[in-house]
Amino acid sequence: MKLATLRSGSPDGELVVVSHDLERAARATDIAPNLLSALESWPIAEPRLRALAAALERGNVSDAIDFPNADVAPPLPRTWQWLDASAFKSHGELMGRAFKQDFIEAKPGAPLMYQGGSDDFVGPWADMPLPSEADGIDFEAELAVVVDRVPMGTPASSALEHVKLVMLANDASLRTFAAAEKKSGFGWIHAKPATSFSPVAVTPDELGTAWRDGRLHLPVRVAWNGRKFGRPNAGEMSFGFQDLIAHAAYSRNLSAGTIIGSGTISNADYATMGSACITERRAIEMAERGAPVTSYMSFGDRVRIEVLDYDGQSIFGAIDQRMVAAGSATSR
Amino acid sequence: MKLATLRSGSPDGELVVVSHDLERAARATDIAPNLLSALESWPIAEPRLRALAAALERGNVSDAIDFPNADVAPPLPRTWQWLDASAFKSHGELMGRAFKQDFIEAKPGAPLMYQGGSDDFVGPWADMPLPSEADGIDFEAELAVVVDRVPMGTPASSALEHVKLVMLANDASLRTFAAAEKKSGFGWIHAKPATSFSPVAVTPDELGTAWRDGRLHLPVRVAWNGRKFGRPNAGEMSFGFQDLIAHAAYSRNLSAGTIIGSGTISNADYATMGSACITERRAIEMAERGAPVTSYMSFGDRVRIEVLDYDGQSIFGAIDQRMVAAGSATSR
Repeated sequence: MKLATLRSGSPDGELVVVSHDLERAARATDIAPNLLSALESWPIAEPRLRALAAALERGNVSDAIDFPNADVAPPLPRTWQWLDASAFKSHGELMGRAFKQDFIEAKPGAPLMYQGGSDDFVGPWADMPLPSEADGIDFEAELAVVVDRVPMGTPASSALEHVKLVMLANDASLRTFAAAEKKSGFGWIHAKPATSFSPVAVTPDELGTAWRDGRLHLPVRVAWNGRKFGRPNAGEMSFGFQDLIAHAAYSRNLSAGTIIGSGTISNADYATMGSACITERRAIEMAERGAPVTSYMSFGDRVRIEVLDYDGQSIFGAIDQRMVAAGSATSR
Repeated sequence: MKLATLRSGSPDGELVVVSHDLERAARATDIAPNLLSALESWPIAEPRLRALAAALERGNVSDAIDFPNADVAPPLPRTWQWLDASAFKSHGELMGRAFKQDFIEAKPGAPLMYQGGSDDFVGPWADMPLPSEADGIDFEAELAVVVDRVPMGTPASSALEHVKLVMLANDASLRTFAAAEKKSGFGWIHAKPATSFSPVAVTPDELGTAWRDGRLHLPVRVAWNGRKFGRPNAGEMSFGFQDLIAHAAYSRNLSAGTIIGSGTISNADYATMGSACITERRAIEMAERGAPVTSYMSFGDRVRIEVLDYDGQSIFGAIDQRMVAAGSATSR
């Protein structure tokens, strides 16, 4: 099942079910007004949403919406918590080597995770408003899962039961601040503006055998201004999402609607696969040539992030957006 | 005006207006169902809430609630964003000296700030559920403000207009994880369980002349198991809340209901004023005697945090709560 949110008068938008081919959508507001509310009552909402999805596939929804031309918001325009890991070992190693700043786990073998702003996400096709071109604007292609309520102390062995939805993220970053804020130890505030998510969030069953071990074993296609940038495989996570969820829930409950991110997708064979963010490419350039060659993004630059299934069908739809000066953003 | 939230069927609770003396409350759900919603429509809600507060003071509310015996939730049981600074220079210096881990600003002169969990706050008189006594359980008495929507790029010069409410916080911490998570650079996940807030949040005018320069110039009374622990003055912040808000909003909008914290209150004259958290007292002991003497909290231990006005009247009510094992918490 694929779910999405259309922009509406409410900051949480309106819930729709989307067809497998991403062409049509059916309004689901009779079932739940928005996705956050559906996640809070998932056992009741899910079977009803699945019935609507089946009707949509059969062509039995008379007032279906033209999804590619709809006013699509992020699946969750805002939510209670957004915790983002750095779960790809090769990314940490490349960054550590280039910036002489090791990625040190708080506990050996534990994932690295920061808390990001969850109150103001950006739509998949909306402009990303940012304060200055001088801040080192970067994209970061990531996988993310949405959980229902996870009680404090939930172990990794039962954590995947809580994964209700999977989606893509563009965890935009301002690199000028990243290293200094990391050095402060307090995590990122300036370096992490609003995050963007894919047009649809899908239930894990929609991913078939590509979803296993709490990982999505498919390449994530990243393009910058229409040119291929990287296609690293998201399955190479050093931790599965079960480990990330258990880590997040050690000393806190996670509310329904909490989003957990993988961190920038990165592969050991980066020479073949490419990267999912500019700073990693720059780190590779520094290691190989002594200095970075690739510049960060300019205002007006566009990033596209997408995953195709084995049949070449887009699973989540594409994040496809421009980075722009704050104040000049348009919503589509 | 003083506002509070009573526990109800909704996770956001029910909004009440509280009398100046904290004895009586009037249901305000006709004006806004909950405080988060009132903050989202503050220009409309505020005058109506003030009219109700005036009626309550005059004794013109027939079904007034006995506030000290009510089922009091945090003013915001959950909200979209909780950003906590470390705005007291003496705390950073003491910690840095003891733990050989400097508090390094990302940019010289900029405040230090981390993002905490905002989805599951603990009531002022409720037990604080925690995973293990071995984790170095600590309290942290802080000031916090609640803002309405702050657009990205708001300067410090106009940031105080956005402060709608002021309250106290107990930013409970698990010290066993704190230094290691800080060293990772990603901020705190395990070290920062749920935060607790005072029974009432007050509008800045309620603070009189003690509220100036974006600071509350009053001592915060901290007691541990009924014994005085410290009374540091909250006015000694190295940054006013205007600076913290402007810092937070550099590259993001802040949604209405965002809470900004001061960090542990701490005074240069700690010998006279005492501390607002155990780890700072331990740091002083390490500096003065070579080793920490004071232990962290045990399950069942109680912390009380309160501020009195010039007349000896409690302004925010007291946070007064026990630290307990997860699973054994009771809500009052």
